[in-house]
Amino acid sequence: MTQDPQTPSSAFDLKRYVETRRALVDDALERLLPPDTAPPPSLHRAMRYSVRAGGKRLRPILVIAGAEAVGGAAEQVMETACAMEMIHTYSLIHDDLPAMDNDDYRRGMLTNHKVFGEAIAILAGDALLTLAFKLIALNGARTGDPSLLSTLVTEVADAAGTDGMVGGQVVDIESEGKTVSAETLDYIHMHKTAALIRASLCAGALIAGGTSSELGAMKRCGEALGLAFQIVDDILDVEGSTEELGKTAGKDAQQQKATYPAYHGLEASRARARVLIDEAKIALAPLGERATPIRALADFIFERRS
Amino acid sequence: MTQDPQTPSSAFDLKRYVETRRALVDDALERLLPPDTAPPPSLHRAMRYSVRAGGKRLRPILVIAGAEAVGGAAEQVMETACAMEMIHTYSLIHDDLPAMDNDDYRRGMLTNHKVFGEAIAILAGDALLTLAFKLIALNGARTGDPSLLSTLVTEVADAAGTDGMVGGQVVDIESEGKTVSAETLDYIHMHKTAALIRASLCAGALIAGGTSSELGAMKRCGEALGLAFQIVDDILDVEGSTEELGKTAGKDAQQQKATYPAYHGLEASRARARVLIDEAKIALAPLGERATPIRALADFIFERRS
Repeated sequence: MTQDPQTPSSAFDLKRYVETRRALVDDALERLLPPDTAPPPSLHRAMRYSVRAGGKRLRPILVIAGAEAVGGAAEQVMETACAMEMIHTYSLIHDDLPAMDNDDYRRGMLTNHKVFGEAIAILAGDALLTLAFKLIALNGARTGDPSLLSTLVTEVADAAGTDGMVGGQVVDIESEGKTVSAETLDYIHMHKTAALIRASLCAGALIAGGTSSELGAMKRCGEALGLAFQIVDDILDVEGSTEELGKTAGKDAQQQKATYPAYHGLEASRARARVLIDEAKIALAPLGERATPIRALADFIFERRS
Repeated sequence: MTQDPQTPSSAFDLKRYVETRRALVDDALERLLPPDTAPPPSLHRAMRYSVRAGGKRLRPILVIAGAEAVGGAAEQVMETACAMEMIHTYSLIHDDLPAMDNDDYRRGMLTNHKVFGEAIAILAGDALLTLAFKLIALNGARTGDPSLLSTLVTEVADAAGTDGMVGGQVVDIESEGKTVSAETLDYIHMHKTAALIRASLCAGALIAGGTSSELGAMKRCGEALGLAFQIVDDILDVEGSTEELGKTAGKDAQQQKATYPAYHGLEASRARARVLIDEAKIALAPLGERATPIRALADFIFERRS
């Protein structure tokens, strides 16, 4: 398998890696979002507000890291990287609405509907989702392969729609205040969060021409990584402070959400996340040194404090 | 230009044409929507509820008619036809929400959020939009032409997003209770309604291999048809009864919406719609007899009572 003599993982500078990729993503987002001045400006301001409020840019960085892990480069996948961030952002805007989680703050800033009103917030989410698919199609078309393009759109749509994020969100809402099984809890986390994280890694690898065994590795890695991410999120909601998180801490317990710590306890949750991170790294073995950034991102996902 | 000796327009049986195409669309929608039994059932029931409540199936029938007008057939464009109906349905579900138009009835039935609650209604709309893009990608990929597929997705995304339907809806909401210019009124109607109707005709013709002059004809026809459709809608809201319309009549005036009759008066609005229908038909001239169904649909759009 691929064993390019690149920087060994031990010396890998994740901070620098994330900073450079993040800057590329932020520039591309500014370029690809409709200008504030074009009609209707209120809609475009609302779209930009929530995208700019963005946190870690984890999903677009995973798209790029997925491409690099199979020998591709960031420029090849930039529209898709931005599209995944737009899909993530649309889901946060809709989740924060009064009819859903009713959140006033997100990443330390007022939520979209608190600034622009509910109607514009709903429509800004709709517009971001729509723009995301346009960008993915434009990006995928550059490969010149219609079946790759169709696989790409299908993979993202499945991860974002009723078989993925939206499906998970529905079960999450319907589980509030109820005692759910361990299976339902895993269903929520796998669909609500892990699906889009998995699709981000896979989309990057797919566009960059990954082989089917490389894509299989990405899928296994992405799934484990995505589930670990959500478990750590659940843990941080218990342990973190509102200041650190930039959103109301303790909100899960207050809303009687189905979470890992509530079901399995904090210690078992942490242990499960650690196992998943290890599984994610094992899945990357065939990719060799090219997957170093993904390994470092996996450790970051476990160790992060917000 | 194409002058196939098909049924002459005078003898064309629109009722039969619409019934057969509508039956094909309804069957395909049943097949393409996620099953009620698959998790999460509440989401799938909500998606099916509003799609099944569907009225005229105008947009999918225009996709089919667009394909046929360039020598294609319904089977070639069925996923895209269904996708356009899903996009239309998602927009109605979101438009009806309390934060938007706050409608309790649509097509004589309770609106989605009145039956399933606001959270599920928002998510059912999101899921329909997501599924629509997956279906369009699958359909477009069968043409084997990545640039056609990318044009197709781009055209639909532009018609549905901030440069189209969502943009129009934003300006519509922001214009409530205000005196708007004739230009703003046209902006709202062209974006909120005409864009998706134009894209339906064009998408069908594009997948079925229409030439660039045929696609140009479809674009001009669809734009005129779409604007006429919305003007007639405005007129029906003034003249129709709630029973005939299946939704609350007089709602536009009550909500102080920007409408053609409110701005130009009923008679001038009717005259403008007539001129647009004629323009739509003139645009179809190069397509000959194959465009007979679109011509008949144009007359129907003008003459309809609901």
